[in-house]
Amino acid sequence: MMAGTGKRRISILGSTGSIGVNTLDVVDQLGGREAFDVVAITGNANIALLAEQAKACGARLAVTADDAQYSALKDALAGSDIEVAAGRDALIEAGARDSDWVMAAIVGTAGLAPTLAAAQRGADIALANKECLVSAGELFINAVAEGGGRLIPVDSEHSAIFQSLEDDQHHAVERIVLTASGGPFRTWTREAMAGVTVETARAHPNWSMGLKISIGSASMFNKALEMIEAKHLFDLKPDQIEVIVHPQSVIHSMVGYTDGSVLAQLGCPDMRTAIGYALTYPNRPKLNVERLDFAKLARLDFEAPDEVRFPALRLARTALERGGIQGAAMNAAEETSFHAFCAGRIGFLNMADITEQVMDSMADYGAATTMDEVFAADAEARRRAGEIIAKNEMAA
Amino acid sequence: MMAGTGKRRISILGSTGSIGVNTLDVVDQLGGREAFDVVAITGNANIALLAEQAKACGARLAVTADDAQYSALKDALAGSDIEVAAGRDALIEAGARDSDWVMAAIVGTAGLAPTLAAAQRGADIALANKECLVSAGELFINAVAEGGGRLIPVDSEHSAIFQSLEDDQHHAVERIVLTASGGPFRTWTREAMAGVTVETARAHPNWSMGLKISIGSASMFNKALEMIEAKHLFDLKPDQIEVIVHPQSVIHSMVGYTDGSVLAQLGCPDMRTAIGYALTYPNRPKLNVERLDFAKLARLDFEAPDEVRFPALRLARTALERGGIQGAAMNAAEETSFHAFCAGRIGFLNMADITEQVMDSMADYGAATTMDEVFAADAEARRRAGEIIAKNEMAA
Repeated sequence: MMAGTGKRRISILGSTGSIGVNTLDVVDQLGGREAFDVVAITGNANIALLAEQAKACGARLAVTADDAQYSALKDALAGSDIEVAAGRDALIEAGARDSDWVMAAIVGTAGLAPTLAAAQRGADIALANKECLVSAGELFINAVAEGGGRLIPVDSEHSAIFQSLEDDQHHAVERIVLTASGGPFRTWTREAMAGVTVETARAHPNWSMGLKISIGSASMFNKALEMIEAKHLFDLKPDQIEVIVHPQSVIHSMVGYTDGSVLAQLGCPDMRTAIGYALTYPNRPKLNVERLDFAKLARLDFEAPDEVRFPALRLARTALERGGIQGAAMNAAEETSFHAFCAGRIGFLNMADITEQVMDSMADYGAATTMDEVFAADAEARRRAGEIIAKNEMAA
Repeated sequence: MMAGTGKRRISILGSTGSIGVNTLDVVDQLGGREAFDVVAITGNANIALLAEQAKACGARLAVTADDAQYSALKDALAGSDIEVAAGRDALIEAGARDSDWVMAAIVGTAGLAPTLAAAQRGADIALANKECLVSAGELFINAVAEGGGRLIPVDSEHSAIFQSLEDDQHHAVERIVLTASGGPFRTWTREAMAGVTVETARAHPNWSMGLKISIGSASMFNKALEMIEAKHLFDLKPDQIEVIVHPQSVIHSMVGYTDGSVLAQLGCPDMRTAIGYALTYPNRPKLNVERLDFAKLARLDFEAPDEVRFPALRLARTALERGGIQGAAMNAAEETSFHAFCAGRIGFLNMADITEQVMDSMADYGAATTMDEVFAADAEARRRAGEIIAKNEMAA
């Protein structure tokens, strides 16, 4: 809280993306400027939205990640007393600037340093950026622990597990069960998947989301990376992490205990529930979101995931077993493959093949001890993936 | 804990019934005589089992509810140093005798006084007897509060809700959702139900249980009484209590919060999970019970309950709205009707009709302020139900 005002001081890293937009909606629902003091918000190229958000929520600092957009943002906020900054260091400053709570929703490795800056000074971190856990793993977890803030996941699956975990009962956690929609190719053969294009992959059944997430859902790479995130978030052994295909995505994930009980969190597909929970934790807020109607749902289905048709899940198990920088290698190789797939350079199934080759080639890398080593591993995996893609094209 | 021994002192009221037998199995799984000091166990007519249990668990006191069985029990325990007693006062003594935890599993109004005695002295109560809440409601809840012990439900539905409730978040509870198997007549017409006999009603799909519970499941009277129990256990308003038909009975019940989240507890149909949870709460034990396999489950179904075909649910709402001794009246009238149904004196659907008539005729009774008033209301409802049944027979 800010001395004297009673307001919660918050920052939103990545405020113009869907998580950021929903976070500001939740902030509005929970009292807006009467209840929250917005220390900083950051965006990338959507300057108009960033400026509009900054004015609406009364942010003190607005940062664009893109140096070249500095003047545009400055102009858009002319006449306000909102501080304007641009570039990588300004993003880190937005994370470092004193606040109680930080939504970490910058996409990609660009989110690492600003989130780390917030974690190190002890802010509560609402975590939506996946690289903090997939790529930086223990390093990031240790930084949060040293800073003394709380780490609250925002991803619906991890939020569900977080909500289903009981205080002081870590010893009684037998397994977590991550639910997966199974994506649009849930029932397709491997042969049919080989012919998939960007357009077919993009039609995901449950969530309206960006291309990267839709493709990641179709290949189940998203779920694979969530397995790695879960390991670090909840301090689990690889064999404690299960995945079950659940096409309706109503059960967001579950925790199985040693007494045979399974606790689950369910909800409509609205990220504001997890965001609101992270914002007011351990208290639950009152949110204007749709409620589940079980009679209307009628049924929930489950099926075992097929690691032959969805090799990403198998690769995640490999990464979990190997440890080290395998998460960073997997994530970076997958992203590079994703871009090659979108460009029509490789097929849908090649994404997993290339990722596996890169992971195998970097299997002897030890754990990263600094963020620079994480960045180096990430870059190296991208380089190797690019090399394989180019070599394949030459051969074809 | 018992001074010096480090053992938890427990008593089991109703040890020869299925809850009692399962409680002793859980006690064995969690260390048996090394971990628990069994202060008292009680049973009814099954003297051989009661004596065997008392010897196996090392109980200090064994009580049969039936005065006439005193000698039989005394003989069966001859040569042991187990104290033997019989009759109503001895049951109360078993509840009153100093222990840390009491399983309250005596069936019917006979369970009221012994459980109350345990509650008043501040023991933790694992509650399986339904009359304590359905019939005695606030009186019992107040006795527990004054005694200072914890009240932990053992019924799978209420245990699920208890497990899905978060500390200090009562303000954020929007609703509870009791799941109901729907019983064997879930899809039957009202006309078909009118012709039901004891034998057809007894075939319940999910649980192996006694006749009373099977018929109560078929008529959904069990669920109706659970609604009343839930009101008292969790301090809810009538409109916060939902029922959803869920034939697989895998989700044992749920809690809906103001942020749109629903927390649920799931498990295989094994009462030992809820018993174990109640025994070691707030810690979870490690139990040898079957684990849920979601791929094997394949699907979970839900449908709205039909209060025309299952009027018991509507009667529960009436009882919740009216308050007072309506719970006692409903329970007693239903039991009387149940016996008449089993004797072939009335039809399946008449059970609800008669219960409703008795409830309506006692609608102006205020809340009971003493246990004697609860017993009086219970007896009066039984008398009135019997009168209606006899009158109908005369008319037929």
